[in-house]
Amino acid sequence: MTRVIVDVMLKPEILDPQGKAVKAALSRLGYAGIADARQGKRFELTLAGEPTPADMEAIREAAASVLSNPVIEYVVDIRVEAAGQ
Amino acid sequence: MTRVIVDVMLKPEILDPQGKAVKAALSRLGYAGIADARQGKRFELTLAGEPTPADMEAIREAAASVLSNPVIEYVVDIRVEAAGQ
Repeated sequence: MTRVIVDVMLKPEILDPQGKAVKAALSRLGYAGIADARQGKRFELTLAGEPTPADMEAIREAAASVLSNPVIEYVVDIRVEAAGQ
Repeated sequence: MTRVIVDVMLKPEILDPQGKAVKAALSRLGYAGIADARQGKRFELTLAGEPTPADMEAIREAAASVLSNPVIEYVVDIRVEAAGQ
């Protein structure tokens, strides 16, 4: 079992109301050191075995089309995590 | 400017309908190698300068109380990213 992590965030130029709400909540609760907050998505994909290069290519493709909306989002990172982590 | 990344996922025993929908969509589109998918949150917090130990303690506290719901979620990781990354 291998886990592949895909991180997706809104593009910097896209307004992020969730992040703004998080930032406002943090400020209200006294976490003054945090200047800005943005919220994105983290996907954990589980594969049966070690990912082959073809698997990774399929995941890259899926990340860019299914896991993110390329109009407003971008894929920050795709990384393989060892099993059991 | 420093960026601190906080990853939050649903606890493994909590049902993840979003992840199930993603898994179903991936299967339907032919990404057969992916056995399971779970969806969580990724926060990017921006700090004005280098985080002090007190800043990191505050972020750990905020992650456990504001950024996640400890009843159903857990904080996977908190990490500092160099500026410009």
